[in-house]
Amino acid sequence: MKKLSRTSPSKIVLLVIDGLGGLPHPETGKTELESARRPNLNRIAKDSLSGLTDPISPGITPGSAPGHLAIFGYDPVKYNIGRGVMEAMGIDLELKPDDIAARGNFCTVDDKGLITHRRAGRLPTDKNAKLCRLLNDIAVEGAEISVLPVKEHRFVLILRGEALFPELADSDPQQIGLAPKKIETLSPQAQKTARIVNEFVSQARSLLHGETPANMVLLRGFSRRPEIPPISEIYKLKPAAIAIYPMYRGLARLVGMKVLPAGESITEQLNNLRRYYADYDFFFVHFKSTDTKGEDGDFRAKVQAIEELDNALPSLLSLDPDVLIITGDHSTPATLAMHSWHPVPFMLKSKWCRPDNVTEFSERACLVGGMGRFPATEIMPLAMANALKLDKLGA
Amino acid sequence: MKKLSRTSPSKIVLLVIDGLGGLPHPETGKTELESARRPNLNRIAKDSLSGLTDPISPGITPGSAPGHLAIFGYDPVKYNIGRGVMEAMGIDLELKPDDIAARGNFCTVDDKGLITHRRAGRLPTDKNAKLCRLLNDIAVEGAEISVLPVKEHRFVLILRGEALFPELADSDPQQIGLAPKKIETLSPQAQKTARIVNEFVSQARSLLHGETPANMVLLRGFSRRPEIPPISEIYKLKPAAIAIYPMYRGLARLVGMKVLPAGESITEQLNNLRRYYADYDFFFVHFKSTDTKGEDGDFRAKVQAIEELDNALPSLLSLDPDVLIITGDHSTPATLAMHSWHPVPFMLKSKWCRPDNVTEFSERACLVGGMGRFPATEIMPLAMANALKLDKLGA
Repeated sequence: MKKLSRTSPSKIVLLVIDGLGGLPHPETGKTELESARRPNLNRIAKDSLSGLTDPISPGITPGSAPGHLAIFGYDPVKYNIGRGVMEAMGIDLELKPDDIAARGNFCTVDDKGLITHRRAGRLPTDKNAKLCRLLNDIAVEGAEISVLPVKEHRFVLILRGEALFPELADSDPQQIGLAPKKIETLSPQAQKTARIVNEFVSQARSLLHGETPANMVLLRGFSRRPEIPPISEIYKLKPAAIAIYPMYRGLARLVGMKVLPAGESITEQLNNLRRYYADYDFFFVHFKSTDTKGEDGDFRAKVQAIEELDNALPSLLSLDPDVLIITGDHSTPATLAMHSWHPVPFMLKSKWCRPDNVTEFSERACLVGGMGRFPATEIMPLAMANALKLDKLGA
Repeated sequence: MKKLSRTSPSKIVLLVIDGLGGLPHPETGKTELESARRPNLNRIAKDSLSGLTDPISPGITPGSAPGHLAIFGYDPVKYNIGRGVMEAMGIDLELKPDDIAARGNFCTVDDKGLITHRRAGRLPTDKNAKLCRLLNDIAVEGAEISVLPVKEHRFVLILRGEALFPELADSDPQQIGLAPKKIETLSPQAQKTARIVNEFVSQARSLLHGETPANMVLLRGFSRRPEIPPISEIYKLKPAAIAIYPMYRGLARLVGMKVLPAGESITEQLNNLRRYYADYDFFFVHFKSTDTKGEDGDFRAKVQAIEELDNALPSLLSLDPDVLIITGDHSTPATLAMHSWHPVPFMLKSKWCRPDNVTEFSERACLVGGMGRFPATEIMPLAMANALKLDKLGA
């Protein structure tokens, strides 16, 4: 891909509707997408090449990271992003390449040191912030330590320093009635790091002694930012992201996108797209609430989220991008109230896309689209081809 | 495949319509194929298994060589054919396995030796032939040197001898204002070859001194015929090719096909198919002008080329081959006027093919065919199966 890619003035816009795919409502037999008033999505479908895309492979339900990495053209199984790094990205933290990140929980232990509650009764977030300030004072020789609050009982532990390695087992035994485990190394090179973390945990235990209910910490998912070749290098693009939620900004940064101001709504996101349109040639726009409402199990609210998005589209369409892709990172059917394995509706509109017979944007209609059913990792090459940014292979 | 293949009297005919796939005409909304009167193709489609095939993978535009290698069952990325070898095949030159071939340009340099024109003003072909005869007299210890004219400014340089290797960088800097580069080795074993080529270039410079405008040569794409296991070995077939253009005869030879007389038109090609029908069990018939007209951007002429082909088909159908495959090596939409990444219509007719609901041969119709969208490397196994030339796998 690196060999075939070339820079050109054409523009690609990739709109990811998080958790787009759904399942039929038991009463109407229609999915969330089929139930929504969506004149703009349907109009685009008429001029598009459409299909159903599998983020990973049939039957596999992706988390947000693998779902997005696949759309960005990376093998989502090869580029595994650790829990610690995900948590750091979720609070907009920019990790350095060598930083070690772990996901932390405040928990409750009894006087024998056995866990009685893994989440300290879902600690209030302000209490969490106070305790993190306490733990931030911990100093251990060999690494600079930061403890940053997330929501409720969650925090991120960051270690920065020389010769640190993330091959460490979790301290979280994932059940109550046991003691937090000593951090064990999974590779000899991580011995120094294990010593530092165990010293941190020991000091944390002392500092939290007497606190109620959060008197201990659990750590898991030690990880380092994976080394991912940037989109600029593979596709020779100048890519930018317009995403409201930190996790998606983090994923965009990870693949080398410039993170632009997003605003607070899809309308503001598309206004920002217009404002920065001249400066980049690839835009990732992320729409979140379809997924949130799906996870809430709120069918009606997910339908409304799709309608909100559809209403905002004319502003995007008036930019007339050379290639417009609309798809999702995975399905989140409201009836399941969770991410799912179902393939995701996809459409690509360009002057050169060879439209098919599909005239509406839905799970059922895309099934007979020109792309058929295909892996999400094929989206980027297809986008590049339609933007006339790929040379041919061989003579 | 080697293990499962067996020889039998059944016959396979593979008709490749070069650049077959197209894009809709902006006025009619119909592709070249959809616009053509094609009663025979449509009649075959009714009894066929059809689909849309990707020569390489979605988004990737194939050159002629990768497109054909994929249809012949070879991984088109693994078997890369160098520019020099392609050029030699284009003039029907039979390379020996150890021959080194390079693509040459006659160019113009100024009195400082800097390139002022990379193609010497697209030299007339007869002038080219005269200069090649001059260069053919160059003798360098260690290799037998041949210089063969192609069209306009292009020639092929062939080195034949002991211990020659193609790991050499180009001398062509691909831009004007620079001097031709000294040939550098890309692997230590190629040092002797580099010395020979640099000596050739030095003598060529002397011989061309004073010529206008072609007073220097540029070389690129040093390569050797790739070692490709022949079709006879993999599929136990006795394969033959009926192709008018040298490049396709070269590709056929590369995979071990016997190159038969072709004639000058599809009618003559099919007459030759009939004449040699008893002697082989696999025939590759290549139809070129669909691609040529597509590359010319001449929609109407591409439609006519398809109609010319369709008219000739009854002669082929009367042979009633056990397996008849009709497809293309890639798309060449007249609206794009170049090879493209779009998948290519495909159909396979045999007594055992399980026909689908497709009743015409077109991009849109094949989309819902029984093969769906599939990689071109699956065509050969499918052909073999339908010819009942494959054993089952396992008990």
